[in-house]
Amino acid sequence: MDMRPPQLTDMPLDARYSAVRAHTLALAAPLSDEDCGAQSMPDASPVKWHMAHTTWFFETFILERMEPDFAPFHPAFRVLFNSYYNGVGDKHPRAQRGLLTRPAMAQVRAYRADVDARMARLLAAELEAEQRAVLEMLITLGLQHEQQHQELILTDVKHLLAQSALLPAYLDAPRAVETAAAPVAWVNFEGGLAEIGHAGDGFCFDNELPRHKQYVAPFQLASRLVTNGEYLAFVAAGGYFNAALWLAEGWDWVRTQGIKAPFYWHQDEQGAWTEFTLHGAQPLDLDRPATHLSLFEADAYAHWAGARLPTEAEWEVASASTHLQQMFGHCWQWTSSSYAPYPGFQVAPGALGEYNGKFMLNQYVLRGSSCATPDGHTRATYRNFFPAGARWQFTGLRLARRH
Amino acid sequence: MDMRPPQLTDMPLDARYSAVRAHTLALAAPLSDEDCGAQSMPDASPVKWHMAHTTWFFETFILERMEPDFAPFHPAFRVLFNSYYNGVGDKHPRAQRGLLTRPAMAQVRAYRADVDARMARLLAAELEAEQRAVLEMLITLGLQHEQQHQELILTDVKHLLAQSALLPAYLDAPRAVETAAAPVAWVNFEGGLAEIGHAGDGFCFDNELPRHKQYVAPFQLASRLVTNGEYLAFVAAGGYFNAALWLAEGWDWVRTQGIKAPFYWHQDEQGAWTEFTLHGAQPLDLDRPATHLSLFEADAYAHWAGARLPTEAEWEVASASTHLQQMFGHCWQWTSSSYAPYPGFQVAPGALGEYNGKFMLNQYVLRGSSCATPDGHTRATYRNFFPAGARWQFTGLRLARRH
Amino acid sequence: MDMRPPQLTDMPLDARYSAVRAHTLALAAPLSDEDCGAQSMPDASPVKWHMAHTTWFFETFILERMEPDFAPFHPAFRVLFNSYYNGVGDKHPRAQRGLLTRPAMAQVRAYRADVDARMARLLAAELEAEQRAVLEMLITLGLQHEQQHQELILTDVKHLLAQSALLPAYLDAPRAVETAAAPVAWVNFEGGLAEIGHAGDGFCFDNELPRHKQYVAPFQLASRLVTNGEYLAFVAAGGYFNAALWLAEGWDWVRTQGIKAPFYWHQDEQGAWTEFTLHGAQPLDLDRPATHLSLFEADAYAHWAGARLPTEAEWEVASASTHLQQMFGHCWQWTSSSYAPYPGFQVAPGALGEYNGKFMLNQYVLRGSSCATPDGHTRATYRNFFPAGARWQFTGLRLARRH
Amino acid sequence: MDMRPPQLTDMPLDARYSAVRAHTLALAAPLSDEDCGAQSMPDASPVKWHMAHTTWFFETFILERMEPDFAPFHPAFRVLFNSYYNGVGDKHPRAQRGLLTRPAMAQVRAYRADVDARMARLLAAELEAEQRAVLEMLITLGLQHEQQHQELILTDVKHLLAQSALLPAYLDAPRAVETAAAPVAWVNFEGGLAEIGHAGDGFCFDNELPRHKQYVAPFQLASRLVTNGEYLAFVAAGGYFNAALWLAEGWDWVRTQGIKAPFYWHQDEQGAWTEFTLHGAQPLDLDRPATHLSLFEADAYAHWAGARLPTEAEWEVASASTHLQQMFGHCWQWTSSSYAPYPGFQVAPGALGEYNGKFMLNQYVLRGSSCATPDGHTRATYRNFFPAGARWQFTGLRLARRH
Repeated sequence: MDMRPPQLTDMPLDARYSAVRAHTLALAAPLSDEDCGAQSMPDASPVKWHMAHTTWFFETFILERMEPDFAPFHPAFRVLFNSYYNGVGDKHPRAQRGLLTRPAMAQVRAYRADVDARMARLLAAELEAEQRAVLEMLITLGLQHEQQHQELILTDVKHLLAQSALLPAYLDAPRAVETAAAPVAWVNFEGGLAEIGHAGDGFCFDNELPRHKQYVAPFQLASRLVTNGEYLAFVAAGGYFNAALWLAEGWDWVRTQGIKAPFYWHQDEQGAWTEFTLHGAQPLDLDRPATHLSLFEADAYAHWAGARLPTEAEWEVASASTHLQQMFGHCWQWTSSSYAPYPGFQVAPGALGEYNGKFMLNQYVLRGSSCATPDGHTRATYRNFFPAGARWQFTGLRLARRH
Repeated sequence: MDMRPPQLTDMPLDARYSAVRAHTLALAAPLSDEDCGAQSMPDASPVKWHMAHTTWFFETFILERMEPDFAPFHPAFRVLFNSYYNGVGDKHPRAQRGLLTRPAMAQVRAYRADVDARMARLLAAELEAEQRAVLEMLITLGLQHEQQHQELILTDVKHLLAQSALLPAYLDAPRAVETAAAPVAWVNFEGGLAEIGHAGDGFCFDNELPRHKQYVAPFQLASRLVTNGEYLAFVAAGGYFNAALWLAEGWDWVRTQGIKAPFYWHQDEQGAWTEFTLHGAQPLDLDRPATHLSLFEADAYAHWAGARLPTEAEWEVASASTHLQQMFGHCWQWTSSSYAPYPGFQVAPGALGEYNGKFMLNQYVLRGSSCATPDGHTRATYRNFFPAGARWQFTGLRLARRH
Repeated sequence: MDMRPPQLTDMPLDARYSAVRAHTLALAAPLSDEDCGAQSMPDASPVKWHMAHTTWFFETFILERMEPDFAPFHPAFRVLFNSYYNGVGDKHPRAQRGLLTRPAMAQVRAYRADVDARMARLLAAELEAEQRAVLEMLITLGLQHEQQHQELILTDVKHLLAQSALLPAYLDAPRAVETAAAPVAWVNFEGGLAEIGHAGDGFCFDNELPRHKQYVAPFQLASRLVTNGEYLAFVAAGGYFNAALWLAEGWDWVRTQGIKAPFYWHQDEQGAWTEFTLHGAQPLDLDRPATHLSLFEADAYAHWAGARLPTEAEWEVASASTHLQQMFGHCWQWTSSSYAPYPGFQVAPGALGEYNGKFMLNQYVLRGSSCATPDGHTRATYRNFFPAGARWQFTGLRLARRH
Repeated sequence: MDMRPPQLTDMPLDARYSAVRAHTLALAAPLSDEDCGAQSMPDASPVKWHMAHTTWFFETFILERMEPDFAPFHPAFRVLFNSYYNGVGDKHPRAQRGLLTRPAMAQVRAYRADVDARMARLLAAELEAEQRAVLEMLITLGLQHEQQHQELILTDVKHLLAQSALLPAYLDAPRAVETAAAPVAWVNFEGGLAEIGHAGDGFCFDNELPRHKQYVAPFQLASRLVTNGEYLAFVAAGGYFNAALWLAEGWDWVRTQGIKAPFYWHQDEQGAWTEFTLHGAQPLDLDRPATHLSLFEADAYAHWAGARLPTEAEWEVASASTHLQQMFGHCWQWTSSSYAPYPGFQVAPGALGEYNGKFMLNQYVLRGSSCATPDGHTRATYRNFFPAGARWQFTGLRLARRH
């Protein structure tokens, strides 16, 4: 199975809608209804919930506003599949999404089909220009939103399958062989007054705006991501037992939770390392980028390696360079930047204004994209964000240092 | 659907085995695979887990010991479906049983079929008399064990369905109409030196033995259970807000958890009461016995009513009386007796010795049986037990007082 | 310093009042005001709080009822020093008693002196016979209550001092040398129908009443308590790592809290054992009774030793025997009996009725008395009680088995 | 009592040492030994601990390195009074500092006197120039460190006294009358490329370095702090019940903890507001700056007022302006800036390197200084920092908005 959707560029909107929506179904195809219902931790959601919530988004923010004679597919779904929008009303408790055995998967599939049919009618209807512009903007947002959940489907399924003693594979096909990692090179950037943030007409999220000036001092960036082999050297050197390498909160986290290696790594009694993947348990591939690292681990590794994490401005400035590899499509890359509003950031009115702004606290920015990110969902200005202890996403690191 | 199995008395063992095993499947029949996988709280288990664990019991305690050339159906199941037997080895964490989307329901059904076939072969085999006696004893125990889980399937499914905003019914059929509750009468018992515990050749659990003497002072027992109507009067009188009625730990429980009514009761904005049942939400039936009460609530009610809970010895002594109604088949009845070993109690050697003895602390005995108890599973000497705060079982109360 | 008060028997009530009250001050004498203010855990209370609460008891239950023109010493004290009497009104949160730096110790001493003076006036006043009887009954209860807190002062101070890296001694004097433990003998008791509970005119708590019949099967009791040396053999044999010996809740407790030895035992790097005592850290004395054991540990030890804990009825029946040593004055002795009301138990009306009855759940009875129990506070019918995990009291065990 | 120390500028180092050390004793003077021992929450420390820890700092980082024939005052103090320096070794658990009734206050005073005497000898000794420079640098750091704890003594004592139902005053003198708050004005700043961070020879903490360039867009800053009166309008307008105003984590904090007003505010049954102060409970003074606000509250208020919090760079750039009032000496002012290393930040080698860097995560910067900050401890480049939910410090806010 291809985890990535077809190329979406230049498709008309209705075709793009169909392609993105179909890709969500494709991601669920290898899973049973039972697999789709379980929630392995409060941070993760069942696949069924992702499938319903992304549909709820179209129903609530588009159909409810623009469909003549709107009637909800099911009145209870407004509450059941609201994620965090206070402006929409009540929400089902996040930690209990795994208890929603009703509605059944079949009903959720029917919900998707129903909303898709109504969306198709709406798209085909004659609308005034302004209304059409709003519709196209909202559909684009809805598709971007669904693509975010497509990545979460993969990370959440991986986390769920890892709970089972059977360590089942999501994908039957064997894992592709990774080529040997190239030696790392340090690429110089002169810095200076830079423009940061999204420019141009294409879609972006509100948190990528406004484009604004930032002063960036000269710096160097590693040409590629840190590999499993490099990270293993840190583990072997006792990195998890050396307080001097860790942020205070990170050290507390390591000690309290007894953490000794990246999230999906496992060392058997003979000392051999495996990592759990979407292809099941696999020998640790020393050439692949290290992933499923918390910010704490990324920061401690950088400290140990005599380097540091880049800021998000450094990463964005550097992203145009042709000397950097693995910027996209491998792992999200932790930065040292706290997730904060850009100068002049404006929150949209209404419930959609809750999309990004209210999370700008105690989270850290990741840049790039991962192996699980849908293709059309990648931008150099994209700001992903997670708390410092999150490990179930495909998160890795690229080193930075002073020039 | 009949929640009760066919009458098992006088059936030959192989027929009884088939009947009990088939009844478990019948209980799961109204449920989807999704329903069967979810775990609504750590105290409850998924139906799938109950189906597999009862099968594991036969495989581990019978086939593994007695089957020639024993090979496990699946090596991982020994850990996955062990409930609490330290003597058998590792266990899957109790609170994470809802994450076992693999094995799939289909595989668990295959597991049941495989073990049933092997059990049938073993039962049909020629065995020495002593071995056959052991086999029959163990099968009887396994069937009693499975019947306990049949009751838990119903209480756990009820709890799960109650989590859904849709409040779905487990049973489609309408609820039977309850006849008007008879006036309560106080039945006298003279007390004296009594024999308590199981007698005779029939099956009993180890905790019902040995039969022994206890002195019981004269007492009275109410002729029937406390009804919803009577309990509602306690609620209306502010019983949940009067500290003087409650045990200290009960008062803490009420305050901390904000408890104001029995577990499945709900009062709508107009003040009308409904109760969630296996038939879905229903108007509160004032004539039915109050159920899903914790020991705290049962004790506070009794205090308020100028009575007390019976001891388990009083209950057992009285059980032979013809003047008492609703002793079996309605609700388990809380007693004031802490669950403790009878004088001379012996723990069986090996892992089976963990069946009852190690739980004899901080739990309280319930007597009788409930509407969810399989018919062949009822005895006057039966000792059910739960912690004082448990409410998801069909638990009610019968009042006692001094003679 | 003598931890025990002068003999109180046959003293007139006013002299007894003075003697008991003075003993509380004597217990606090080796401590600084700082020592008296700290609370080392929610279960323990600061010495200052004990001193004020016992005084509050006399003020609230006697002076407030019987003193002409009663005015409280300080209006806020009614809340600050109420322990658990809902009938009296609000309470200061139990876990925050260590934050009561105001009132200062000097003010608490003044509170004691003021109440003592008023009590002396009341005792000297002319009262009608019935009123005098009530007064004498309440003073007796207040003194018994204060003696209970005298024991708690010692156990709570021991717990507090054990938190300090300095391991300071409460008592300067060297610890008395213990004589070698005698070999244990098994003493036979024939059992039968026995009378249990307090008899006669002397004081007893409500929970020792009414005297009633119980049938006790034949049993044996060990002639003395289990010693440190015997318990050390259990530790050395891996008792804390053998699930088969433990109650399920006990095994959970051992694993979750990482418990490997009795509460105040410490093993140094050379393997030598010390125990923290009121005389500071001392070499483990193998001849003394093992103490500071939870019920879990006592039960596991008994299991390992092929014996069991006695019931409280067995203990009380046996207490008249001349063949048993160490029944009183060494350690409270865990029984297997859940703390429950005796048949016919009556709760006193009003707030004083909260003294014992509301705690009769999930606690276990201890019999005898300890080295910290005031002399006049010992009875064969005395029922002490604590939850199964409590370890900071002087709690040990005496073995029982079938005859 | 004057909460502020004498002016320290231009004092010779030995006089400065004496003045700062004496001021700590002066702050403890209104308190009893009992007051000094209690710890009201894990975030706060007992005064005794502050007194000992600041002394430990001089003993560990100066005397241990530079004193000939160094011997510790007490070997256990190295552990007991270590706050968070992993490089120094073990630490007493932070949440149990209130249990350190030993050493007694008298011993801690003796510890201070002993270290002061040894420090005086060291300062008077003949040293090589380089050694003297190191000594002077370390003493300066130690005094700055002690001044930080002087502020904490006041905030921690305030928190402790607020726990008591007696609401005692730390200071007997009546509270000074505040003059009427001036109308707020918006002061314009043009922004541009600015130099941020400490410059010059004077002392600064490592986190104020290196001085570096930042681009700041044009902005406006309010001429004074938000007052109690203004904040009360937010409370009265239902600000605490309007999800749209809050960061997601802040809304969760408000709901979970039931927060409805600033930390020390209390509304009586007639609706009148008081605030607890170091002078005891006082009527809410509408003209004073609002204080004891969390970042969540400051941010929600700013949102409600159509403004935002300043960044720390904006605050620092603006601090030279003569148009701004209440920049120092009233309340610490929350900024929207996450506490992060400045570009090129270097951690000092050894345990002293733990001073600031390891806390640079999930904390937010506050600028200015408060009424509790010692006078010589104020700089425009000073970076104070606390987690977003901290409320027991003197924390307020100044509004910012776009130019």
